[in-house]
Amino acid sequence: MPLIGCVPNVSEGRHEEIIQLISSEIASVRGVKLLDVTSDSELNRSVFTFVGTQTPLRRAVYRMMRVAFEKIDISKHKGKHPRIGIIDVIPFIPLRATTMERCIRLSKTVGKDLAENFGVPVYLYEQSATAPERVSINDIRSGEYEGFFEKIQRPEWKPDFGPARIHPTAGAVAVGARPPIITFNITLKNVTVKGARSIIEEIRAAGARPRQVKAILLDKGRRNKMTIAVNVFDYKNTPMYAVLEAAEKGARREGAQVVGVKLIGLITADVLIKSLNYYMKVEEFDSSQVLEFHLPPRRNRAQ
Amino acid sequence: MPLIGCVPNVSEGRHEEIIQLISSEIASVRGVKLLDVTSDSELNRSVFTFVGTQTPLRRAVYRMMRVAFEKIDISKHKGKHPRIGIIDVIPFIPLRATTMERCIRLSKTVGKDLAENFGVPVYLYEQSATAPERVSINDIRSGEYEGFFEKIQRPEWKPDFGPARIHPTAGAVAVGARPPIITFNITLKNVTVKGARSIIEEIRAAGARPRQVKAILLDKGRRNKMTIAVNVFDYKNTPMYAVLEAAEKGARREGAQVVGVKLIGLITADVLIKSLNYYMKVEEFDSSQVLEFHLPPRRNRAQ
Repeated sequence: MPLIGCVPNVSEGRHEEIIQLISSEIASVRGVKLLDVTSDSELNRSVFTFVGTQTPLRRAVYRMMRVAFEKIDISKHKGKHPRIGIIDVIPFIPLRATTMERCIRLSKTVGKDLAENFGVPVYLYEQSATAPERVSINDIRSGEYEGFFEKIQRPEWKPDFGPARIHPTAGAVAVGARPPIITFNITLKNVTVKGARSIIEEIRAAGARPRQVKAILLDKGRRNKMTIAVNVFDYKNTPMYAVLEAAEKGARREGAQVVGVKLIGLITADVLIKSLNYYMKVEEFDSSQVLEFHLPPRRNRAQ
Repeated sequence: MPLIGCVPNVSEGRHEEIIQLISSEIASVRGVKLLDVTSDSELNRSVFTFVGTQTPLRRAVYRMMRVAFEKIDISKHKGKHPRIGIIDVIPFIPLRATTMERCIRLSKTVGKDLAENFGVPVYLYEQSATAPERVSINDIRSGEYEGFFEKIQRPEWKPDFGPARIHPTAGAVAVGARPPIITFNITLKNVTVKGARSIIEEIRAAGARPRQVKAILLDKGRRNKMTIAVNVFDYKNTPMYAVLEAAEKGARREGAQVVGVKLIGLITADVLIKSLNYYMKVEEFDSSQVLEFHLPPRRNRAQ
């Protein structure tokens, strides 16, 4: 059976009842399995991870948007994570027995749905992007909701679907297709903004290839604590531990400390396996040696 | 569905065709799933991991024994790992929707089967043991096959099933029930027997409670390299990394080096999760955040 992943980031991480409502809408779609919900109240953001085939996924995103549209007002949203809309970004990910092309097509169908049904401007990003400056979500998002009233009027930022004006309460949405990535936030203490930027450079340089590790600073260092959001694209060649060790090295140099790491959404088993191999010198080990991989899932935290 | 694990250790790790034949016998039993085969030619030993319900497991062990009985002669067996018979030890492990009591009963049925059908003496061990000195496999196994001609005649070593004489080509078998454990071999270099014994003490002391980490020296240090076999019983409270760090600490003190770790059979996802949490400071992370735990198994290395 073909399996596509969908990982929308919603600009709501504080009101449990809204997060719960969105979870229920996703889980209510036949053919969709909700795997994880990771919320963060400081970022005021929740990441939903679910899997399914094309039509159920399209339906689930529509239902999520309907609830978000009713319950979230982006003009009142405050949080550390940059965002342009109530559902900020919707990536589709080919997981099994499917292709990137199918995910690109699905992202376009979904983008059109959202523009037509909710009147929001939609940008296609990553593999679905229609221009090089729209590939990276960070480029699309720069200026954020507040800056988009102006940005959207520039011809080069005309949306791919929907009106060339930001929706006052829903903002704008980025939809696209991309391979699986690993996403985590690193929290540092005793660090200045300048120090954090230098640590970010260290983290980016840990990538096996250029621009495969993306890192942005999420806050301006109140309370001497800062969070760096990291996306590892090329995680097959850039192990998570290499990124963490770069962060530790940078932190030592800046007199700062890594206090914790929070994984956003799912990782693949490979990340765990490589960690065991690297830190514990375990040899010839693969996921077939993990009992749970052979058993049907026992429970589902997200439901 | 109730699920019991079975992890027989077979005294053959060199002849691929025999290992393959035993694998096929196990896999041919309806209701049994063979998950892993870990072989080691230096130890001359293979560990088969499979799961199922009582009757299929009983049948699989019978079929294994039938092949082993025909193909392996324990009187000619040489290898680093201590052993008393062709199938040295057969633990049953309650995994899901079953009880330790059921596994104890199954171990007794299987022990009786083997004694009656193959004329081998059988010892019940761990939770199935009939005397305190028979709980630990190391106590049962001491003296090995070669010492059992004499040992078995002592009244306190009368077998639980079968004749009070060692079978000349099949040896003896230990069968029992126990909780899941983690088993791995640590290889050291630049180490003396005395140094290895001191590292073993360090490893044992890493257990959260006494006698929950068992460790034995597998060889006598030819080529300056030695292997320590470790069983972690209380792995929920004694993380694998704590054992490895104890080994590293002991090795540093003795001027030796840990060169590698080989996992025998399966581990549980918890071990991986704890490794990530510990080494990479990952917080609030559990197995529901690992993609593969939600998906049906893709392949099976062992089959």
